[in-house]
Amino acid sequence: MTLKEDAINLHRLLRGKIEISSRISSDNIFENSKEEGKGTLSSIYTPGVAYVSNEIQKNKELAYDYTSKWNTIAIVCDGTRVLGLGDIGPEGALPVMEGKSVLFKTLGNVNAFPLCISTKDKEEIIKFVKAIEPSFGAINIEDIESPKVLEIVERLQKEMSIPIFHDDRHGTAVITLAALINSLRIIQKNSESVKVVIAGAGSAGYGIFKILSRAGFKEITVIDKKGAIYDGRDNNENNEKLRDLQSNKQNNPKRDSISLNSFKREIALKTNLNKIAGNLETAIKGADIFIGTSGIGNLMNSQMVGSMKRDPIIFALSNPTPEILPDEAKSAGARIMATGRSDFPNQINNAVVFPSIFRALLDLRIRNLDEDILISVSKSIADLVDIKHLNEEFIIPKINDPRLLPVVTKSLKEYILMQNPS
Amino acid sequence: MTLKEDAINLHRLLRGKIEISSRISSDNIFENSKEEGKGTLSSIYTPGVAYVSNEIQKNKELAYDYTSKWNTIAIVCDGTRVLGLGDIGPEGALPVMEGKSVLFKTLGNVNAFPLCISTKDKEEIIKFVKAIEPSFGAINIEDIESPKVLEIVERLQKEMSIPIFHDDRHGTAVITLAALINSLRIIQKNSESVKVVIAGAGSAGYGIFKILSRAGFKEITVIDKKGAIYDGRDNNENNEKLRDLQSNKQNNPKRDSISLNSFKREIALKTNLNKIAGNLETAIKGADIFIGTSGIGNLMNSQMVGSMKRDPIIFALSNPTPEILPDEAKSAGARIMATGRSDFPNQINNAVVFPSIFRALLDLRIRNLDEDILISVSKSIADLVDIKHLNEEFIIPKINDPRLLPVVTKSLKEYILMQNPS
Repeated sequence: MTLKEDAINLHRLLRGKIEISSRISSDNIFENSKEEGKGTLSSIYTPGVAYVSNEIQKNKELAYDYTSKWNTIAIVCDGTRVLGLGDIGPEGALPVMEGKSVLFKTLGNVNAFPLCISTKDKEEIIKFVKAIEPSFGAINIEDIESPKVLEIVERLQKEMSIPIFHDDRHGTAVITLAALINSLRIIQKNSESVKVVIAGAGSAGYGIFKILSRAGFKEITVIDKKGAIYDGRDNNENNEKLRDLQSNKQNNPKRDSISLNSFKREIALKTNLNKIAGNLETAIKGADIFIGTSGIGNLMNSQMVGSMKRDPIIFALSNPTPEILPDEAKSAGARIMATGRSDFPNQINNAVVFPSIFRALLDLRIRNLDEDILISVSKSIADLVDIKHLNEEFIIPKINDPRLLPVVTKSLKEYILMQNPS
Repeated sequence: MTLKEDAINLHRLLRGKIEISSRISSDNIFENSKEEGKGTLSSIYTPGVAYVSNEIQKNKELAYDYTSKWNTIAIVCDGTRVLGLGDIGPEGALPVMEGKSVLFKTLGNVNAFPLCISTKDKEEIIKFVKAIEPSFGAINIEDIESPKVLEIVERLQKEMSIPIFHDDRHGTAVITLAALINSLRIIQKNSESVKVVIAGAGSAGYGIFKILSRAGFKEITVIDKKGAIYDGRDNNENNEKLRDLQSNKQNNPKRDSISLNSFKREIALKTNLNKIAGNLETAIKGADIFIGTSGIGNLMNSQMVGSMKRDPIIFALSNPTPEILPDEAKSAGARIMATGRSDFPNQINNAVVFPSIFRALLDLRIRNLDEDILISVSKSIADLVDIKHLNEEFIIPKINDPRLLPVVTKSLKEYILMQNPS
């Protein structure tokens, strides 16, 4: 049986990988006995529940004490960028989000409910997520196309009072940095002196750029479809787009590209300061580290790996086909090789991160998820790989490492204490 | 310990009456064995789940076969009319909706997720519910203020392709008619000849008016805060409101009252054809049946009961304080007395209805929930009370009667077969 047949059979058999369970014994609900604390109909529902509602009405904070809000998150997805499949629609996204929900529960004891929605409009998605705030303790934004999603998340983080996590950006950044910290330990290079090339400037590429910059990586070049990004590259094009806008094409599909530029502008201002133009082939020459988030399989070849500095580190993270396959990269001299796939060593997967981060976000009610917090998590995850066991084929802990949860929580607690030493 | 203390202690102890559970054994997920059908990481999540997503992308209907959609509903509430508490906000509504979710699961095996939202705007609520359609098999609209909610539900029923149920309207109507059918059996009166007075023209009052009209009750009078409704009563006021609107007061809070009038106009055209003006005291004289959905405790008194025809039927459904207490009504001559409360006989409670109706709506994918379908459910529920056991203190089955589920499903199946005899 192929993986395809196995997966489809399993899903047909299950008809749903998650369900909603009652935490009240059905024996108690309809008992006529007046025994207290048992969850009889009159205390879980009307009339008794009215007292609970009244208390929350007086003090909204009590929703965290009297309902599931403290431990419940929404996975919000519009189906526009699901896995490597692209815009497959919200229904198509459902089985993926249910899979995430299973991992959230199994690995982090978090109740994660998938909300795959039918609108793709940026403002409507923002309104939607703001509307559900009362029911949830945190929000996970998932598999929404960039650059739209980057703006959505920034807006939500400003305008909402519960934690907003963007797995494709934040999760990928955390686990990539963790893998990078351990890779540099192996090859004994320093983050300040290495040259990093990131292929792809979407959610993952942008997130990795942000975390690496903040973590002290000094030489970064980010490549998008038009080549290496640098300050000034898109000037002519921007002017064109502005003219388009000014000529009253309000529904011009190019409009969103303008907002991409705010994120690319940030990249342009902080990377590739020598303004070296060109494609991946040019940029990769003399680089120490390649990180692929391009979504383009086989973007890289042996020659490019050969043109890198000694002990190349290759993270070819695109799925299902990585930018270069491990065998090819290794033969061409790659010292450390990682992919996003489970069938090769060193799987760099968000799932190592999101269940434990959400556990901590919920428990600690952390609202402002900045790069410093993410870096502290990366470090704690990297440190889980004992220096004795650390090697080219084992740079990050397994998804189900039971130490992840306590360690991530501890590092976030310490980070908060450091920020608020009172 | 008081009920209040018991309810609050229980909620504090539980911190959530529901949770999301994984249906995949955690032992299997991280097994390295390639055993099929076990739900390993590669089949429930990436890469295997991508095959499932692709199939759904090609045929959205498969979401019903491969995900939880077929058995998952949303309970959508804006917190504006929760129980008898009024506008207590979405957080305050959460414990009530979790209680409903427990009943949905326990009694109907339905996964019901509470979405208490922060917007009260009619158009935004409509947009919101339409946005979540991909994730759910049906929607339960709950505890949203009328008349806004009546319009929301009518719009959603037209504009969405999954079943929309409005518990306050549809659920209350079904159980009230069931109770009325059995009450008339006891006192041996005929639905076509009895005179019914309904106090309250909100969601419940409107729903009861609709179902009774369709079920053949000929003489109905509905009373709102201004007295008995009849065709022409509000003409002057309507003209005033139209003038207000025309004078450009676009955000005038009175605006919504105009839409109320579309439902009240319907009531006016079909009830109280003799156009008898006056308050409850006037209207109740010579009536056979009183149904209270006014939200006003103690609206009725002994004298009014005394002015009714022989064998008065009193359903005083407002909570927590009914329009008249059973003792008082009985002393004044009421033959059959019912309330919405669990501490008196004959509790007329939506919970008898919604779990089994949703089970059937989901299983049969019934979209057009009209009064005829609701009547067929009422009849099947009424028939569950064996004529041998039927008496003044036992007119409807208990909430947890195990026969409800199969009987409601059967009656809906038969109804559909009758409509589509092919």
